[in-house]
Amino acid sequence: MLVVEEVTAIIVFWGHFMNHAKTLVESYFGVHHGELEIGGVPVGSIVREYGTPLYAYDSSVLEKKWSALRAALPKRFAIFYSMKANPNQAIVRFFLNRGCGIEIASGGELHQALHAGCPPEQIVFAGPGKTPAELHQALSAGIEEIHVESLVEAQRISTISRQLGRTARVAVRVNPRQEVQGGAMRMGGKPAPFGIDEEQLDPVLEYIFSESHLQFTGIHLYIGTQILQHSILIQQYRAGLEIACRISQQFQQKVRTVDFGGGYGIPYFASEQPLDVAALGAGLASLMEEYGNHSALCDTRFIVEPGRFLVGEAGIYIMQITDIKVSRGKKYLIVDGGMHHHLAASGNLGQVIRRNYPIALLNRIDAEPQETVNVVGPLCTPLDLLASDVALPSANVGDYIGIFQSGAYARTASPHGFLSHPTPPEVWVEQQRASLVRKRGGHDGWLQDQCPLGDLGVQ
Amino acid sequence: MLVVEEVTAIIVFWGHFMNHAKTLVESYFGVHHGELEIGGVPVGSIVREYGTPLYAYDSSVLEKKWSALRAALPKRFAIFYSMKANPNQAIVRFFLNRGCGIEIASGGELHQALHAGCPPEQIVFAGPGKTPAELHQALSAGIEEIHVESLVEAQRISTISRQLGRTARVAVRVNPRQEVQGGAMRMGGKPAPFGIDEEQLDPVLEYIFSESHLQFTGIHLYIGTQILQHSILIQQYRAGLEIACRISQQFQQKVRTVDFGGGYGIPYFASEQPLDVAALGAGLASLMEEYGNHSALCDTRFIVEPGRFLVGEAGIYIMQITDIKVSRGKKYLIVDGGMHHHLAASGNLGQVIRRNYPIALLNRIDAEPQETVNVVGPLCTPLDLLASDVALPSANVGDYIGIFQSGAYARTASPHGFLSHPTPPEVWVEQQRASLVRKRGGHDGWLQDQCPLGDLGVQ
Repeated sequence: MLVVEEVTAIIVFWGHFMNHAKTLVESYFGVHHGELEIGGVPVGSIVREYGTPLYAYDSSVLEKKWSALRAALPKRFAIFYSMKANPNQAIVRFFLNRGCGIEIASGGELHQALHAGCPPEQIVFAGPGKTPAELHQALSAGIEEIHVESLVEAQRISTISRQLGRTARVAVRVNPRQEVQGGAMRMGGKPAPFGIDEEQLDPVLEYIFSESHLQFTGIHLYIGTQILQHSILIQQYRAGLEIACRISQQFQQKVRTVDFGGGYGIPYFASEQPLDVAALGAGLASLMEEYGNHSALCDTRFIVEPGRFLVGEAGIYIMQITDIKVSRGKKYLIVDGGMHHHLAASGNLGQVIRRNYPIALLNRIDAEPQETVNVVGPLCTPLDLLASDVALPSANVGDYIGIFQSGAYARTASPHGFLSHPTPPEVWVEQQRASLVRKRGGHDGWLQDQCPLGDLGVQ
Repeated sequence: MLVVEEVTAIIVFWGHFMNHAKTLVESYFGVHHGELEIGGVPVGSIVREYGTPLYAYDSSVLEKKWSALRAALPKRFAIFYSMKANPNQAIVRFFLNRGCGIEIASGGELHQALHAGCPPEQIVFAGPGKTPAELHQALSAGIEEIHVESLVEAQRISTISRQLGRTARVAVRVNPRQEVQGGAMRMGGKPAPFGIDEEQLDPVLEYIFSESHLQFTGIHLYIGTQILQHSILIQQYRAGLEIACRISQQFQQKVRTVDFGGGYGIPYFASEQPLDVAALGAGLASLMEEYGNHSALCDTRFIVEPGRFLVGEAGIYIMQITDIKVSRGKKYLIVDGGMHHHLAASGNLGQVIRRNYPIALLNRIDAEPQETVNVVGPLCTPLDLLASDVALPSANVGDYIGIFQSGAYARTASPHGFLSHPTPPEVWVEQQRASLVRKRGGHDGWLQDQCPLGDLGVQ
């Protein structure tokens, strides 16, 4: 039995929780007659045109995120969109149109970046285990820079460059010697498959300087992921600048690139605060005053590679309720989407403790929560859980459920083939117009008709 | 510092671990000149023809598993392959050719079953949240039976059947009232989104009996998943038979179908023992003596729906080592496959504690383990870990790494789009011949050439 304190705690928690979805709606979306609007378009009209489940992306949110970051960062900082967060062509083009570079992590991403119209000289390629075929593809295309992960990789790049009669621009990805601790994040000091241990850098750098088909450009650092405190970033950037200066001095070489990687987070849960971009910018400005005119760094271009930060908040995964059940006191809303489209929301993408993503009843977005429900998908597994014990307004079959913060690592990081449901379409909303930017897909050539859900109104 | 006992414990653990992969090799595969053979074909020749990463399926393992189960189960038990485990057409056809039925869980699976040549009358459809469109598709095709999950669904089926001028055969999926405890598994007694609570059955059954377009056939039970103890299954089957008798008596109806669902496990880890199929068969024979001639059950067909049990052990996920690194004392084998192709092996498919799947160096399969390594994929995330601190023979770049127990829920349950790598081909080996049963795939129309890895021999 619950005691009063527990009930109070639950209500407070509910309040927080609802506030998070509400905060997102107020910050980025609109409400018209109780219905969520995405980029000025009512969710109902999107659903009626494209069917559920679907992912919708609001370009005005991308614009807000991009502008805020661009305005905050010093001019010497270039932004490269990390397309692993969401490789949709519309999103890649959005950033290209704003002068953004693209960070790729595979040959497939290279293809997609070029296909979106990205000039090769705006592409950098990072990631462990690049295959010779991928390196060949990248070097043939003439991309800006490859971030070298090992001596073996440096040797491969040199060989392929020689075969192609080209010179490859390479930066070395460093796994720092010293642990930089800040909050929950740590960088360096530990064994890792990523990059080259700082203490093992010398032979790799010597090799690069000795090879005529390799041109050393600088260093790349992996800062972490989902970082929400600017102070951690600043602290880690400082460590990176120290490494750059040290290398420059030791090898008497200028450092053309210092790539700080990505890691900028977004708040998924009520307890999390957004990254303070202005404070980050101010911190970087101080760092630039301190290091920017160092002889090693005076011509350096600094790169950051945000992905999740730029696109995560722009996307909503939208489903429809197909059935409602009460089983032994627990209420279940059964929806036509699930973990196969949103592994992270189901808690199965590296989470230690499952927490609910911000979720809402989109066609009654301003209604007060009235009941505690579980939102589950159509898969025959208890893993297909999208929200547990979440407070929502009383819902009906046919209502729309939305999971916010679904612009990054939602579609791209989910097991779409699990139980062979169709893959959801992606809808882009810009200037109050929704358009299809990826069609609904099937498996083995199969595709359900235009209305995959069918008529729910039979009961 | 390690003390002697710890070292001994580690060696024993290694021994166990290696034994598991070894046991699988001895039970199901072959070795020729130190190289693994799959269905009599050396792994090297498969890899040279189809490239890595790939999934290989050995039809002789399917045959062994199928024969053992078919021989053990009483004749009154029909086997329906649960195709969610692996919907590949070659696998579905393999079971169809042996008189097996197919259990589907989505419209996509229905399409694939029919496409594989499955007669509709050999298909049963289970799963929460079936959409009206899926029900329409299934009823139009005239499948054998639909397992009803709620009153709403029964009403939908009735409406659609009426529209189509058909009668739908329906069994009710029951969430038992009583908890049946056995080992680590529990069935019933708890709230669940699956099936209808036993105490809520009456109105649903009354509705079904009252509707002219619905024909009641029986009951379906969800037993659990990955069960390795036959005694638990027997105990749960007994509970199911009791429910069937009770319903029959209460409604004065014969029960044509009792579907016990799936749940038969395979041993993934050294500590696990295989399901004792003979003992399961003996237990079922006793159950049949006890219940089989009960007036409610004398014409009943009993159904089991194994998926993982039949196909899991037949599949190996095969990769190639692209790089080898030592970082601060830890050795990493970097391979060209990863969690995007095998989420379960990375520990991100519902596992609470990550454990290594059985893994081996396939081109030196009989060599003794010499070193402790971590096997990681090419994704820029620490989640892309396929084996941690595993003992393997000393490996070289270009060697083949295989993850066993990858026939079920490997390809189908993995986030293939994550980082836009090509999707691996599937290779079927039968009568000492390997053939392609799914091509390598790309994203957004992109496909790497026939040799996705490229020439590793440059260093």
